[in-house]
Amino acid sequence: MRILLVGAGGVGSAFAAIAARRSFPEAVVVTDYDGDRARATAEAVGDARFTSAGSVDAGDADAVAALLAEHRCDVLMNAVDPRFVMPLFRAALAGGATYVDMAMSLSRPHPENPYAETGVKLGDEQFAMAGEWEAAGQLALVGMGVEPGLSDVFARYAADHLFSSIDELGVRDGANLEVAGYDFAPSFSIWTTIEECLNPPVVYEAGRGFFTTPPFSEPEVFDFPEGIGPVECVNVEHEEVLLMPRWVDAGRVTFKYGLGTEFIDVLKALHKVGLDRTDPVTVKGVQVSPRDVVAACLPDPARLGDRMSGKTCAGLWVTGTGTDGGPRQVYLYHVVDNEWSMREYGHQAVVWQTAVNPVVALELLAEGTWSGSGVLGPEAFDAVPFLELLTAYGSPWGMREGG
Amino acid sequence: MRILLVGAGGVGSAFAAIAARRSFPEAVVVTDYDGDRARATAEAVGDARFTSAGSVDAGDADAVAALLAEHRCDVLMNAVDPRFVMPLFRAALAGGATYVDMAMSLSRPHPENPYAETGVKLGDEQFAMAGEWEAAGQLALVGMGVEPGLSDVFARYAADHLFSSIDELGVRDGANLEVAGYDFAPSFSIWTTIEECLNPPVVYEAGRGFFTTPPFSEPEVFDFPEGIGPVECVNVEHEEVLLMPRWVDAGRVTFKYGLGTEFIDVLKALHKVGLDRTDPVTVKGVQVSPRDVVAACLPDPARLGDRMSGKTCAGLWVTGTGTDGGPRQVYLYHVVDNEWSMREYGHQAVVWQTAVNPVVALELLAEGTWSGSGVLGPEAFDAVPFLELLTAYGSPWGMREGG
Repeated sequence: MRILLVGAGGVGSAFAAIAARRSFPEAVVVTDYDGDRARATAEAVGDARFTSAGSVDAGDADAVAALLAEHRCDVLMNAVDPRFVMPLFRAALAGGATYVDMAMSLSRPHPENPYAETGVKLGDEQFAMAGEWEAAGQLALVGMGVEPGLSDVFARYAADHLFSSIDELGVRDGANLEVAGYDFAPSFSIWTTIEECLNPPVVYEAGRGFFTTPPFSEPEVFDFPEGIGPVECVNVEHEEVLLMPRWVDAGRVTFKYGLGTEFIDVLKALHKVGLDRTDPVTVKGVQVSPRDVVAACLPDPARLGDRMSGKTCAGLWVTGTGTDGGPRQVYLYHVVDNEWSMREYGHQAVVWQTAVNPVVALELLAEGTWSGSGVLGPEAFDAVPFLELLTAYGSPWGMREGG
Repeated sequence: MRILLVGAGGVGSAFAAIAARRSFPEAVVVTDYDGDRARATAEAVGDARFTSAGSVDAGDADAVAALLAEHRCDVLMNAVDPRFVMPLFRAALAGGATYVDMAMSLSRPHPENPYAETGVKLGDEQFAMAGEWEAAGQLALVGMGVEPGLSDVFARYAADHLFSSIDELGVRDGANLEVAGYDFAPSFSIWTTIEECLNPPVVYEAGRGFFTTPPFSEPEVFDFPEGIGPVECVNVEHEEVLLMPRWVDAGRVTFKYGLGTEFIDVLKALHKVGLDRTDPVTVKGVQVSPRDVVAACLPDPARLGDRMSGKTCAGLWVTGTGTDGGPRQVYLYHVVDNEWSMREYGHQAVVWQTAVNPVVALELLAEGTWSGSGVLGPEAFDAVPFLELLTAYGSPWGMREGG
C-alpha cells in the first residue's frame, strides 16, 4: 500500500509516527500547504518509506490527483481540516485511489429553521457521490478517526455481539486533560471544535429521522472511566449521528461532548462577537477570517503534549435489550493517557487517539480483512478484527457494564 | 475659537452636531484617518463654519501640527482612540493650540506585580510634560468627556458645595440600553472597553496611594436612577481615579462600571483566547491585531442608535461628612435617554453623552469663564458654571440624596 498523506499537522504527524511501526505501508508520501512542515514530518519518522512531496493546496483536486499519480499512491489519507474534504474526495476518485478521512463534508444549517430542521447534513455531499465510487469499484472509508471512527466500530460491535435491539447509541466524549502554563489551551483544532460545537447539533430518532436543536442542548453529567470522572456533556453536531443509522438499527443516536462549562462559555462568547465566522472581515484594509484569527491567537495543540497531563476518553453508551432478552446498558470506550502517548510516540493523547484508528483501518484494508466499494462508514465493516488489531497496537479498549 | 476636530467616528460626529447649535465656534475643521468620513461628518452638520480637512494620520504629530497652522486653529479637539493621545498632545503643544481630550495617555501594567502595583499610569505621560505646557502658557484640558469629564466636575462640585470632608469618590456608570436585532452589540468602542476593563483596575487611597487589583474586582450592585435600576458594577481602570486626587481631597477614589454579567463573561473569554491583544498575529501570511479583528466583527456602535432603546447613566457616588457636620452620601448623575438623543441630535445616547461635555467646556473657555495653563483635569475648574451651561444645553444633571 502506497499512501499519500495530505496534512502534516498534529493528527497527520501522529499518523506517520504510528504507521512507521507497521510493515503494511510500502510508502507514505507526506504533503501539506506548508512544505517545510511536510518535510519535517517525513524526516521525524526516520524511515526510508516516508518521504515528502512538499507543498500542496488541499483545495486543488487536480494538483492532489497529480501527486497520487506521480507517487503511484493507491490511498489518499486526508488529515487536513474538513473544509478540504470535497476536493480531496474528488481527487481520490479521479486518481483511482482509496480515500480515508476522519471528518466528513461540512453541513449547512437549514435556512429558515436551523435549530429544529437539518439543512445540508455532514457527509451529504460525499454520500451524494456514492454511486460514482461504486461504479468505479473504489472505496471511500469516511469518518475513520476516533470519533467518528472507533465510536462507529463500537456501534457495529454492540449490534452484532451485545444487543438484540438498541434503544440509543450515545457517543460520549470526555477528558481530564490540563495544559500547564496556559490559561486556555484547547487540546484539539479550535477550527474544528468551533465547527462542531456552534453548528446546530443533530439528533436521530427512528420514525422521526434527523432533527436539530440549539447549540449546547440537553446537558448531562456523564461519569467517564479510568479516573476521569463526571464531566458535563452537551449535544454537538457530529458525524456518528449521520453514519450509524445507515448501518445499525437504533431508536435514537446522539453525540455529546464533555466540553466543560468554561469551554462552553468561551465558545458562546466567540459566537456572540462573531469570531466563529469563517467569511472574511476587513481589518484596516486586510481581509482575514475571524476563525483563523482565533486559531492564530491560541497555541498549536499538537505542540502542547509535553505540557499536558491527564487522559482523554472516546466511547459509546449503548442502551437496549441484551442478547439474553433483558435490559442492558454498556459503555464501550477507549482511553489514552497523555503521559503514555508522549512517552511511546511523542504525540499528545488527543491527536494520537485520532490518528491510530485510520492506521488500523488501512492495515485491515491492506491485508484484505476489510474490503468494499462505495462510500462506507466504519460500521459497514466487521468490528472484531478492528478491535483486536487496535489492542495489538498496544492501545486496548474497554467495556463498562451498566453504562 | 477655531477648532481642529481630529476623529469623525461616533463621538466626533456627535461633537460636531452639538457644537453646531452654539455660536462660540468660529470654525470647526474635521479630519479623520478616513477622509470620506471626515467630509461626511462636516457636511452632515449643514453649517458653513464646519469644513473638512480630509484624511490625516493621528499618529503623525507633524502632520497634525501642520493642519493646525494651515487652518489657523487655536484648539485641537481629540476624538480618536487613546492610542493617539500622545502624538496629538504633542501636535497641540507644538502648534500653540489648546488641547482637549476625553481619554488620557495609556497605562502599562507593572512588570512583576500587575494586579497589586501600578506601572505607568493613565495620563502619566501627559502629566510628565505639564511643565512645558505651563512654560508655554498653554492649556491641555485632559479627560473632558463624560467619564472622565463630567464625573470629575461632580467631584469638584461635591467638595466645594456639599461636603466638608469626603470619604470616597466612587464613579458609578450603568445603563439599561438594548440593541434590537443583535445578540451582542456594545454601545461604545470595543477597543476602548477592552482596554478599560482588562487592564488592572486602579484604586486610590489616602496614605496608601495608587494600587491595582485583578480585573473585575469588588463586584457591587448599584441602583441607578430614572428607572435604570440595579446593575452589577466592578472595578475598572479609569482616568478619574488618577485625576481626582490631584485636586480634590478624598479618602478613597474608585471607578466601577456596570458591565453586566454577560459582558464580563465575553471580555473574560476574549482575554482567555488572547483576542484582546493589540500586538499583531500572523494569519495565513497577513499581520493583524486581534483586538482590531474583534472590533471589525462587531457593528459600529455609532450606527446602532436607531436600534437602541433605554438610558445611560454617568455619575459620582460621594460619601463623607456634609457641610452641616453630619454623615452624608449623594449620587450626582447625568442620564441620557437614547430616544431623546436620537430625536434631538440623531446620535445615540452614549456617544452624545460623551461629546456634549467637551462642547460645554470649550464654550466656557471661549467666553473666558474657565481659563488656565498647564495640564489640568476638569476638577481644576469651577464646577458651577459647567453644570449650569450643561443644563442650558437641554441636558440637566441630577442629585440623589442618600447615595
